[in-house]
Amino acid sequence: MAEQTSYIEAIERLPEALRTAVLGLSDKQLDTPAGEGKWNIRQITHHIADANINAYSRMKLIMTEKKPILKPYDQDQWAILTDSKNAPVESTLTLIKGLCERWVVFMRSLPETSWTREGIHLENGKMTLFDVLKLYSNHGNSHLQQIVAFRQDMKW
Amino acid sequence: MAEQTSYIEAIERLPEALRTAVLGLSDKQLDTPAGEGKWNIRQITHHIADANINAYSRMKLIMTEKKPILKPYDQDQWAILTDSKNAPVESTLTLIKGLCERWVVFMRSLPETSWTREGIHLENGKMTLFDVLKLYSNHGNSHLQQIVAFRQDMKW
Amino acid sequence: MAEQTSYIEAIERLPEALRTAVLGLSDKQLDTPAGEGKWNIRQITHHIADANINAYSRMKLIMTEKKPILKPYDQDQWAILTDSKNAPVESTLTLIKGLCERWVVFMRSLPETSWTREGIHLENGKMTLFDVLKLYSNHGNSHLQQIVAFRQDMKW
Amino acid sequence: MAEQTSYIEAIERLPEALRTAVLGLSDKQLDTPAGEGKWNIRQITHHIADANINAYSRMKLIMTEKKPILKPYDQDQWAILTDSKNAPVESTLTLIKGLCERWVVFMRSLPETSWTREGIHLENGKMTLFDVLKLYSNHGNSHLQQIVAFRQDMKW
Repeated sequence: MAEQTSYIEAIERLPEALRTAVLGLSDKQLDTPAGEGKWNIRQITHHIADANINAYSRMKLIMTEKKPILKPYDQDQWAILTDSKNAPVESTLTLIKGLCERWVVFMRSLPETSWTREGIHLENGKMTLFDVLKLYSNHGNSHLQQIVAFRQDMKW
Repeated sequence: MAEQTSYIEAIERLPEALRTAVLGLSDKQLDTPAGEGKWNIRQITHHIADANINAYSRMKLIMTEKKPILKPYDQDQWAILTDSKNAPVESTLTLIKGLCERWVVFMRSLPETSWTREGIHLENGKMTLFDVLKLYSNHGNSHLQQIVAFRQDMKW
Repeated sequence: MAEQTSYIEAIERLPEALRTAVLGLSDKQLDTPAGEGKWNIRQITHHIADANINAYSRMKLIMTEKKPILKPYDQDQWAILTDSKNAPVESTLTLIKGLCERWVVFMRSLPETSWTREGIHLENGKMTLFDVLKLYSNHGNSHLQQIVAFRQDMKW
Repeated sequence: MAEQTSYIEAIERLPEALRTAVLGLSDKQLDTPAGEGKWNIRQITHHIADANINAYSRMKLIMTEKKPILKPYDQDQWAILTDSKNAPVESTLTLIKGLCERWVVFMRSLPETSWTREGIHLENGKMTLFDVLKLYSNHGNSHLQQIVAFRQDMKW
């Protein structure tokens, strides 16, 4: 229980933390790859939104169906679509703010027994609701730290 | 081509139009069913966001995979989840604004040939990218009109 | 109705017709490609069984579930598995005889209304029960004729 | 390795063992439920064939695709279809003989490394090729013993 709580809190903090992490970056900085063969901060920011959209949908499928199919998505292909490379990060910060607010209301309303409900991920097999929470809560934090660390490296 | 353009424009206008449509409604008004056995405006607003999240994901799957599975979702079950019934519409207006901005950038970047690409919807069968656009552009407008008409009926 | 009847009758006749078509062929003849880059008669025979196993399963899924997923199979990959290349055709003639007998009993027991029931094929989209019947009844006949024609060409 | 061997041998022995198990039973005996609310021997026999058809297909999907979907089937619904209740067991004994012969050739041809290949079963999640072998080898044996035990109980 305490464990869910902290993962949900990380999702609740994500929108502001991410906004702060990218604050004041120029387009040129946003478009600088965060290491060789790595995504740039713009792509990472958009990717966090895409991942969370998927996580939100998966959780709702798991709560409203019996062992629903959880469709994987090809994150590397999504990250090179034109909007991932060119769209303003502001749009995505807005999206993430609204999404996480609803998502947190949803998660905090769930009965304790819900967290063992399962979906079938077409690559990973069974995933519980808690697995999805843990995976994506950590995923957001991990990319957030990646952005912060890269700015420090670049002295931006 | 002209046809895509107008559907995309409807999605571009949706966030502001929806904000205007629900402007100034009290919580009590938001929670009044829009007819017998119908959803209330809060649920409709959250449902528009959920539908568009699905549409956005489906389009990206179609563009990044060969005939991907498009997973249906049970909209009636989603609409009675706690966040659909209780979360502030403001969160969803924010979500829709950010989502539609990225979505429109994405759609306007696509080569003309993309619109015949297909996914396999697990209830409807084959759906082209254009089918998804048309369906969800009309879907948003239709619910928008439903809200506007209900406010007029109620003289709100 | 008459249309179903003739397709079902073709499946009923298939086991004997196929046995006759491959009668007396040596292993060397069975292993001779039926044209450049084509399967040999052994592979074709085993492939007919595999296709019919899939058709039988799809029909039963369609009759016992609401819009079931119909999983495609990669016939070219199946045809180069060791058993497709090496197993005795006698095994497959036996398999097809038993399978078609049960399959025909099943199909003749169905209410007329069943033939419009649908499954979702992950490449072709919606397929009705009748679509599956027509496709695989013709498929068996077509490969049967391919074998007969090839023997004539080879004067075997 | 030794473990696979014994499971494959059980499948190799199944056709003859099953033929012996149902030998000489009258239609009336075949149609007698094997306990309250249980299937009769005719249904059990046809069910063994259906299960093995599914197992054979799943194994071939696993060998020819990367993490294929393994579609469950509703065995209780299949068992009450008209052919499961009425078709002659002889058809199914013939089907099983041909099927198991090819299946055994296939399994004995596989490289040792194949047995850890995976599919995604839409209820059970990940299943390796070895999981499928073990499950269905035991499944056939278990129903075979059920038939033998029921005949002894009935002094048939």
